[in-house]
Amino acid sequence: MATLKINQLTKRFGNHVILDNLTFQIEPNKIYGLLGQNGAGKSTLLNIINNRNFPTDGEIHLDNSTVNNNHDALQKLFLMSETSMYPKRSRVSDMFQLANDGYGQFNFAMAHRLTHSFGVDEKAHLSNLSTGLTTIAKLITALCVNADFIFLDEPTLGLDAGHRELFYRELMKTYEERPRTFVLSTHLISEIQNLVEHVWILDHHQFIRNEDVNDLLANAYAISGPSKLVDEYTSDLTILDQQTLSNIKTVYVVQPLSENKVIPDQIKIEHIDLQRAFTALTIGKEN
Amino acid sequence: MATLKINQLTKRFGNHVILDNLTFQIEPNKIYGLLGQNGAGKSTLLNIINNRNFPTDGEIHLDNSTVNNNHDALQKLFLMSETSMYPKRSRVSDMFQLANDGYGQFNFAMAHRLTHSFGVDEKAHLSNLSTGLTTIAKLITALCVNADFIFLDEPTLGLDAGHRELFYRELMKTYEERPRTFVLSTHLISEIQNLVEHVWILDHHQFIRNEDVNDLLANAYAISGPSKLVDEYTSDLTILDQQTLSNIKTVYVVQPLSENKVIPDQIKIEHIDLQRAFTALTIGKEN
Repeated sequence: MATLKINQLTKRFGNHVILDNLTFQIEPNKIYGLLGQNGAGKSTLLNIINNRNFPTDGEIHLDNSTVNNNHDALQKLFLMSETSMYPKRSRVSDMFQLANDGYGQFNFAMAHRLTHSFGVDEKAHLSNLSTGLTTIAKLITALCVNADFIFLDEPTLGLDAGHRELFYRELMKTYEERPRTFVLSTHLISEIQNLVEHVWILDHHQFIRNEDVNDLLANAYAISGPSKLVDEYTSDLTILDQQTLSNIKTVYVVQPLSENKVIPDQIKIEHIDLQRAFTALTIGKEN
Repeated sequence: MATLKINQLTKRFGNHVILDNLTFQIEPNKIYGLLGQNGAGKSTLLNIINNRNFPTDGEIHLDNSTVNNNHDALQKLFLMSETSMYPKRSRVSDMFQLANDGYGQFNFAMAHRLTHSFGVDEKAHLSNLSTGLTTIAKLITALCVNADFIFLDEPTLGLDAGHRELFYRELMKTYEERPRTFVLSTHLISEIQNLVEHVWILDHHQFIRNEDVNDLLANAYAISGPSKLVDEYTSDLTILDQQTLSNIKTVYVVQPLSENKVIPDQIKIEHIDLQRAFTALTIGKEN
């Protein structure tokens, strides 16, 4: 199976640097999370990888061929589309048909089952669908299309909690049945923590993390206790974010802790979840 | 201060009933939550109240005048807009200017402060903004416009966790400084639980709840224990949703519990939050 290789990718708009010299790989049969604050450039990155936007510098290869305007390579990549890309008066069923025309072997049986489970009418015009139902129609297309790399940009936009759960379940089910690569870009980070294997955290135009989720979480901690003791205990650590309430200070770090250091009785060390680690790594830095 | 009165409102598209004979009031200076699953008709309802869509039957009055095509009444109502309503090449600053032209006394000082806090460029073209930054521009307009009833349809669409928190804080701040009515329609229900005073739950074309949040939560319970005991204890209650794991059954109810009934030792009764109560009241019913 092929690997997608992104090499020294830079994107500028005028004087603004959006993406600064990104080099990374997207492996086959893996579920990735692309995380970043609003405006970090996540959608721009996904659009460039999928040949919908062009880089200022750098290249994207699928194994040894460039992806740019390469029909065979692009046949293996699918990006959940803006519905505005579809002809006016398109129906949900037209999205499925177009995905079949473009990629072949669209899984119509699964699509029919999912439209029923999600409660969307295949005959409905896209222009009449609410935000949530539009997302659902796009998601079903993305889960049933025949491609090796599926990019989901904000897959839960406008979805209610029940539909979000259903999507996560169906994603895992189809992934187990036919392993392929999914890249999820989302702001509901706590909901995908158990779904994604590897995360990229985009901040200030670069990946500040490119790491397996388990490795990241193994080293993500909240350390709390009396301010003075916390300051002493963490003096050799990089504090990403902190809060103080009365005299109790909590600091957040994402790095291995020395096993030799004695932990004072009044200091409490707890693991934090992916959303909290993300916030510490990104927002914390601004304070 | 005026009250908005919705009277026997019905909306049909062809043979489909979307809203069925809704009668309710929107009071001054209150924060409401409009909750419903995808496709429940929330946006349709907000559009009708704001004269962007017409009802099949029924009327909306602001005190004693109809709102329909009534310029003076509509001046008091603001609905967070689709950006597609703005002229092509509009900038963020044009949104503010248009809100000032339409409603007068736009709070430019607050808008400038918020564009800085949220990190959005007032000179940016709307068409170049990401989903999240588009939502932010619309939100800032809605928080700074001079109207008595502000309707926010999916105010956190595409917002990262930090920006969502900032929005909730700024909403409370402006509400305290200048009380007015906000109606929030959102799927991130757990995040607005402490923000909204009153909820409407739209399901199967009608309000299944029209109630103060505190009253609803006071009667929202998870009851769990050995299946047989739970069945006995809840035999006179309306079970909305249930799960069984091994022999432990959990049922969800939203109704007052009799104070006289003895609770067996093995039965655990806990309050549930707004998201769980909503799921029980809506999804549960379908199972």
